[in-house]
Amino acid sequence: MKDLLGREEAVTVDKALALLLEQPMHPPPTECTGIDNAYGRVLSADVVSPEDLPGFKRSTMDGYAVNSKDTFGASDGMPAYLTLVGEVHMGETPGFALQRGEAAVIPTGGMLPEGADAVVMYEHTNTAGADIVEVMKAVAPNENVILPGEDIRKGEVILRAGQRLRPQDVGALAGLGILEVEVFRRPVVAIVSTGDEVVRPEQPVSAGQVRDINSYNLAGLILRSGGIPLRKGIIPDHLDRLRATVSECAKEAQMVLISGGSSVGTRDYTARVIEELGPPGILFHGVSIRPGKPLIGGMGKGIPLFGLPGHPAAVSVCFDTFIEPVLKRLSGEQAAGDRLPPHRTVRALFGRNVASSTGREDHVRVALEFRDDGVWARPILGKSGLIRTLVEADGIVVIPMNKNGLYEGETVEVMLFSG
Amino acid sequence: MKDLLGREEAVTVDKALALLLEQPMHPPPTECTGIDNAYGRVLSADVVSPEDLPGFKRSTMDGYAVNSKDTFGASDGMPAYLTLVGEVHMGETPGFALQRGEAAVIPTGGMLPEGADAVVMYEHTNTAGADIVEVMKAVAPNENVILPGEDIRKGEVILRAGQRLRPQDVGALAGLGILEVEVFRRPVVAIVSTGDEVVRPEQPVSAGQVRDINSYNLAGLILRSGGIPLRKGIIPDHLDRLRATVSECAKEAQMVLISGGSSVGTRDYTARVIEELGPPGILFHGVSIRPGKPLIGGMGKGIPLFGLPGHPAAVSVCFDTFIEPVLKRLSGEQAAGDRLPPHRTVRALFGRNVASSTGREDHVRVALEFRDDGVWARPILGKSGLIRTLVEADGIVVIPMNKNGLYEGETVEVMLFSG
Repeated sequence: MKDLLGREEAVTVDKALALLLEQPMHPPPTECTGIDNAYGRVLSADVVSPEDLPGFKRSTMDGYAVNSKDTFGASDGMPAYLTLVGEVHMGETPGFALQRGEAAVIPTGGMLPEGADAVVMYEHTNTAGADIVEVMKAVAPNENVILPGEDIRKGEVILRAGQRLRPQDVGALAGLGILEVEVFRRPVVAIVSTGDEVVRPEQPVSAGQVRDINSYNLAGLILRSGGIPLRKGIIPDHLDRLRATVSECAKEAQMVLISGGSSVGTRDYTARVIEELGPPGILFHGVSIRPGKPLIGGMGKGIPLFGLPGHPAAVSVCFDTFIEPVLKRLSGEQAAGDRLPPHRTVRALFGRNVASSTGREDHVRVALEFRDDGVWARPILGKSGLIRTLVEADGIVVIPMNKNGLYEGETVEVMLFSG
Repeated sequence: MKDLLGREEAVTVDKALALLLEQPMHPPPTECTGIDNAYGRVLSADVVSPEDLPGFKRSTMDGYAVNSKDTFGASDGMPAYLTLVGEVHMGETPGFALQRGEAAVIPTGGMLPEGADAVVMYEHTNTAGADIVEVMKAVAPNENVILPGEDIRKGEVILRAGQRLRPQDVGALAGLGILEVEVFRRPVVAIVSTGDEVVRPEQPVSAGQVRDINSYNLAGLILRSGGIPLRKGIIPDHLDRLRATVSECAKEAQMVLISGGSSVGTRDYTARVIEELGPPGILFHGVSIRPGKPLIGGMGKGIPLFGLPGHPAAVSVCFDTFIEPVLKRLSGEQAAGDRLPPHRTVRALFGRNVASSTGREDHVRVALEFRDDGVWARPILGKSGLIRTLVEADGIVVIPMNKNGLYEGETVEVMLFSG
């Protein structure tokens, strides 16, 4: 993987992703969670319905419960006349049954009395006396009715292992009386900051030093993707210290991110520590992406490890492109989601000509502008070492490997940073 | 707002939203939060940079710090020769200054010594003896250098009130040594379930009763939008009870959602309680949307109130269309976000012909299918009372008011439900 000058040769984005995702990865252990806290968690086992939903024949309309046969042929010109024999109350089993020729008042959601198989909407009836209902429209059997088990059937798999629970999925669990589910624990992601120049934000900073930006950026990105960030602090540029910290992380976390270390020395230490933790160790060292080229991806003791470039913009791009897909996999989340766009997008007109080298994927930070002629994506072209370029940006436009740039006015898809 | 038959007349979706958003709404009180917990919070005050970032002249490359004048005209054929006088260490102020004709080793991120104004990359140099550097390329002043304050300038507004903090924004705060920020409290949203037939999921359910689905669905939707759900339990269909509960909610919460009550009686109670809490009381009663037509929107004591239809699908559609925008406004989040799609979307081919009435916005639940010829959105056409239709669906396709349906194979934009 070295070129003629002895430098590590960069792999393509697709190749790097494939190298990562073909590794066997174990989702974290499972735990039980109450449905009150289940939103956003990933199921580790299929959920089977313990009962029929609904458990009884329910009306979907306000109207009259009837035997559909009694309405056969009914019309405005020739109504059917039924005897009103009672009223169904919400939440109660009706205390009566319908005989042929009889009807009962029923609210939406009410339980049909025995003998009834359909509901006529109020709109299609008249009251033709104290206890006579005039029906102007025929109803078919089961019309305006939900049958027992029509929503969910007992014994049926209603949610599958590997699904991330959405609000409505938790609603369905509640509806079935399932109070707890088995889920994967949220993966813990250790963040190790390196660099002799990096100090904690609460420390006084002297000339030559900078505060730790990347571990805070990474912590938010990890939270956004459903992981639990574990900041391990700042490790000076010292091989043994880094090795010891990463070994410790491999015991506490399901993934390790080594951030920063823009100097050659730190990068070498990072590579060495990742290689040593293997097999397989380093999977790639350098990717054809900008920003983010110096990224190292590896795997050791079943744990994915990344050596991230020090530039804030490179950190964000590498996270979205490589780390998030691996983190989703580690979360136990499955398949279908992989084929959907992971971020909100918006179509926009590109703001100016930007050149790009073919053979490299360019991730251009853009700010959106809402002009009379549409939404424009203005490229922010500052150095990727500037945090401002990320703070000003609303999202990213990707110039694919086989394109040598974008023209002003070209339609592009902006991946929005999420709030 | 009543039609000729005395029924409430439905307003359009745009009109309903306008009626809601033109109401004065007060974001919740503010609080201070540490940057460790700031991700996703909404700033309540502008953030001004307390210092220049970086605080010193920094190299963006591994190479040699030089005085650019000494490299003037240097080329492969006619290199400039400089005397190596030292090495800059990461995180330290160099203990020397450069004289004309001198150079010093500098790592990426290192501080330029006094007398240096540019950095020559290693790639453009040779070592021509123990302390002689051969420079094969001229550098301009400030080349490969970040100047003090070039990223962020002292006194500059770096983040604005009303912004929801993204991972990189928290990174910027850390980089500036800002450890705390003032944010709006997350708005509390009270959920009141109504209906004599509704029981809590942990209760045994008898014929005629159903478990509370909607308040669990709503709790997840509120969390997704940055609010804090406050489930107030299930209130029987009784005007005084509902009135008392809603009054209590108006003291504890910034928004009240009254869910369910599919029967006419409950709907009437809900409308009455909302009207009584005003002025202005009820803003609209009924919207031209399916599912979700019976929605009531109102405002009282400065608090938005919604009376939601009982069908689970209607709850989700009403939340995404009306409640989320109001909740974002209540969160103190500002402007720009309003113009961006609030959800992930994916383009797909519509799976079958579906008719829709003009004058009504249809929100069709769809499941995505990944076929050889592209992504297809298969409409799920079950009754909106079935929770299954939401659990099976991956998202929603909107048929706008002025369209009378969608054809099979038509390209549509699917708003994805988020996990």
